[in-house]
Amino acid sequence: MEAKKVSSSFTIMNEIVLPNDTNIFGNLMGGRLMYWMDIAAAIAAGKHCNAPVMTASVDNISFKTPIKLGNVVHIEAQITRAFNTSMEVFLKVWGEDPLHQYRYESNEAYFTFVALDPNGKPRPVPAAVPESESEHKLYEGALRRRQLRLILAGKMKPDDASELKALFVKE
Amino acid sequence: MEAKKVSSSFTIMNEIVLPNDTNIFGNLMGGRLMYWMDIAAAIAAGKHCNAPVMTASVDNISFKTPIKLGNVVHIEAQITRAFNTSMEVFLKVWGEDPLHQYRYESNEAYFTFVALDPNGKPRPVPAAVPESESEHKLYEGALRRRQLRLILAGKMKPDDASELKALFVKE
Amino acid sequence: MEAKKVSSSFTIMNEIVLPNDTNIFGNLMGGRLMYWMDIAAAIAAGKHCNAPVMTASVDNISFKTPIKLGNVVHIEAQITRAFNTSMEVFLKVWGEDPLHQYRYESNEAYFTFVALDPNGKPRPVPAAVPESESEHKLYEGALRRRQLRLILAGKMKPDDASELKALFVKE
Amino acid sequence: MEAKKVSSSFTIMNEIVLPNDTNIFGNLMGGRLMYWMDIAAAIAAGKHCNAPVMTASVDNISFKTPIKLGNVVHIEAQITRAFNTSMEVFLKVWGEDPLHQYRYESNEAYFTFVALDPNGKPRPVPAAVPESESEHKLYEGALRRRQLRLILAGKMKPDDASELKALFVKE
Amino acid sequence: MEAKKVSSSFTIMNEIVLPNDTNIFGNLMGGRLMYWMDIAAAIAAGKHCNAPVMTASVDNISFKTPIKLGNVVHIEAQITRAFNTSMEVFLKVWGEDPLHQYRYESNEAYFTFVALDPNGKPRPVPAAVPESESEHKLYEGALRRRQLRLILAGKMKPDDASELKALFVKE
Amino acid sequence: MEAKKVSSSFTIMNEIVLPNDTNIFGNLMGGRLMYWMDIAAAIAAGKHCNAPVMTASVDNISFKTPIKLGNVVHIEAQITRAFNTSMEVFLKVWGEDPLHQYRYESNEAYFTFVALDPNGKPRPVPAAVPESESEHKLYEGALRRRQLRLILAGKMKPDDASELKALFVKE
Repeated sequence: MEAKKVSSSFTIMNEIVLPNDTNIFGNLMGGRLMYWMDIAAAIAAGKHCNAPVMTASVDNISFKTPIKLGNVVHIEAQITRAFNTSMEVFLKVWGEDPLHQYRYESNEAYFTFVALDPNGKPRPVPAAVPESESEHKLYEGALRRRQLRLILAGKMKPDDASELKALFVKE
Repeated sequence: MEAKKVSSSFTIMNEIVLPNDTNIFGNLMGGRLMYWMDIAAAIAAGKHCNAPVMTASVDNISFKTPIKLGNVVHIEAQITRAFNTSMEVFLKVWGEDPLHQYRYESNEAYFTFVALDPNGKPRPVPAAVPESESEHKLYEGALRRRQLRLILAGKMKPDDASELKALFVKE
Repeated sequence: MEAKKVSSSFTIMNEIVLPNDTNIFGNLMGGRLMYWMDIAAAIAAGKHCNAPVMTASVDNISFKTPIKLGNVVHIEAQITRAFNTSMEVFLKVWGEDPLHQYRYESNEAYFTFVALDPNGKPRPVPAAVPESESEHKLYEGALRRRQLRLILAGKMKPDDASELKALFVKE
Repeated sequence: MEAKKVSSSFTIMNEIVLPNDTNIFGNLMGGRLMYWMDIAAAIAAGKHCNAPVMTASVDNISFKTPIKLGNVVHIEAQITRAFNTSMEVFLKVWGEDPLHQYRYESNEAYFTFVALDPNGKPRPVPAAVPESESEHKLYEGALRRRQLRLILAGKMKPDDASELKALFVKE
Repeated sequence: MEAKKVSSSFTIMNEIVLPNDTNIFGNLMGGRLMYWMDIAAAIAAGKHCNAPVMTASVDNISFKTPIKLGNVVHIEAQITRAFNTSMEVFLKVWGEDPLHQYRYESNEAYFTFVALDPNGKPRPVPAAVPESESEHKLYEGALRRRQLRLILAGKMKPDDASELKALFVKE
Repeated sequence: MEAKKVSSSFTIMNEIVLPNDTNIFGNLMGGRLMYWMDIAAAIAAGKHCNAPVMTASVDNISFKTPIKLGNVVHIEAQITRAFNTSMEVFLKVWGEDPLHQYRYESNEAYFTFVALDPNGKPRPVPAAVPESESEHKLYEGALRRRQLRLILAGKMKPDDASELKALFVKE
């Protein structure tokens, strides 16, 4: 399987916030936004592995400025790194106010997807090749985030998470 | 009002075709696709005029290869030209088969939007400036398409449509 | 295959405009309306050919008075003419304000559908028989609209469109 | 307030059964059908009273042949009788199989709606005038159905329901 | 087939009333509520019979206080009794106003479901065992409601409905 | 403001997985599940603070066994602890296969919500009182999870996260 550039998975999604997507203050509900983010991330992951994909995990998301009714949700998704049968996708989400012509940050997130073979079982994915500086940074951070995920899912002990441990223990 | 580049309205939308979007052959229904195209075009038009917009007309759309269940709908929308209170948006729609990694043309279309003031009445929009060769071509064709729209809506007589008449009458 | 009256395909659809169907002025969005029109037209086409159908093209639509939140969308669809494997459907769309008890025109449109055999390939459809005067008029105009569709889709040269040419060239 | 013919409230609705409307056997779910019936009945009630309406009650519904995925749901709704501030709507629902060109009965139902004034309080509605024989029969049965509703809602004692009692007690 | 306690089918559903679920007064539409009730009742029936189920009938529903936009719909569903191939489900529906922290009754209803075998034909269901006093009362009333359903569906003559007749004829 | 038991916010939600909620293997999509989890968590948070709430953050979610088409999604949500203007909600999600009558774990998650005053600004919430052993455990872990959230959102330095540091540094 030939390695692929992370940039070839780049995916853009734009949506308008409609009444049913909002709470009583006219702010986009978090769950609706995560629904769209999952679709955008799944498209990016599918472009990388050319196989059906399934959401395996979602990292901590912190919602900043709420996105308003009638505004545009702009989502960008791209693979950061591929592991054996899974891919980490990095998402950036903005709100866009077309009337006042400005863009405000909503959140950044990491979703992990597993590639599936025709029987629905995990299958190997191509390696992911970062090129730009920011792609390299995301690529390198992927290992640390993966350790955190495994610890949080109870599949790794903190002691074994060397990358992560270094954040807390200065030697 | 300062003129704006047509390229600053460029909008990309990606969607996955889900079961409810398809007919019994698993092909995306035309009406569902036009729903998405209208959203994408409205976002592009809103970027240009920084005002709420309303769909005024949709030109002839011819659907080519049907987009399949589970495939990705990729829509690109951009202003071609601005008139007094309206903007023509050009859309290109592809289907993307992530498994076999190829992209197939679905259709090209022109939607026209009117910009609205806070009372919901038409308001002037900035002039649109084409830059690339293809943008210039779309810009120039906009007049001819507008004449056709006016004739089809019964607001112009074929005799008065000089641009369009030239297509049929070689002098 | 026995010919069928165009009137036997007559289909009525009524919907209430709900919040999620509207923009910030409480006007029905064009894309949502086209979604409903496509469903109504597909039902009419299916009645004529007794086969699954697929939207092939949509002619120029010009939206007049916007339909308001809470109002009723009233759609009437009927075959105008059948070609070899396709049917043209004529739609009339009104808004109805139940409170003030009046009806206002939204748009008229022509959708073309292809009939599909069990393998999803085009299959012949019965001939369509117009009866009333207005049905005859729609039947005769169908050829001209078809030529325009073929020209706009780049499948016919303006010179070959004899019906259409007559509109521009008085001899 | 001038009395109105029951026939002036006649409303037709057609929908295609899509995947999300069905259970795992591809049969339309009862709840989805009742959703559509409520919309159709509300449109009919609104036509009669020219006011916003609210569903007050739904009578016993018995679902016969299930409507299949891809088939058409055909709903007809019409006022049977008006009471002080409420209206009874009679609905007939068919499934239509476009491929085999036949229509099968799904159910008949009675919905009751209350007319609302601008403050959301019940307001008087015009009297309803039946004309045809079947309209007269529905009109006359409305009293009996109303007594049954009141008994079932615990607002009337069986002893006071003279119309209904006659069904059980032959004197 | 072993008998099962009615309480083992107990099902709770909570939903937030969103804009598209409401009419212009911000009240939950009856049809949308019945859609949710059907889902909740189907889950309860499925728990009892461990088979796919289909809505067979819905008894008279009388809607009391309307549920407001932004409020919570709280639905509780439980089997009352099983017949040969069908089950009666009792539902209680409240609205909950989280801001003022109170709960108001919307309606109580009875839905009947049929259990289906893998070919979509009715199949026997386990007997249902009531335990508490209220479960016993619901269990016993089920026969009477069933007679009323059969009469209303035209499948039983009032004279044969001994349970029901007793309500009207005191001997 | 009087403190409230965490158990008084307990919320149950049940949904059936419909076709449009699934990918091509008939597995519930992660984004759709998070949409439902957000609704359930928002209801629980609203019960605690009796105010409108907004999703502030979502902790790492790891999806285990995928939930199948036609199965039931069972979500339980309850407050673990209240901070100044925010509440942490703990969610447990199962899939339920009604046919084979077993329940399988999907995921556990922590959502954080902010309470809003009538102007949409954060407002204080009542303290949350744990009672059972498991509630106490969740209550105590809330501080540690909060530190992790602040670090991940770049608002706290790892060195200052005493609770969290203890996991990595045994002294």
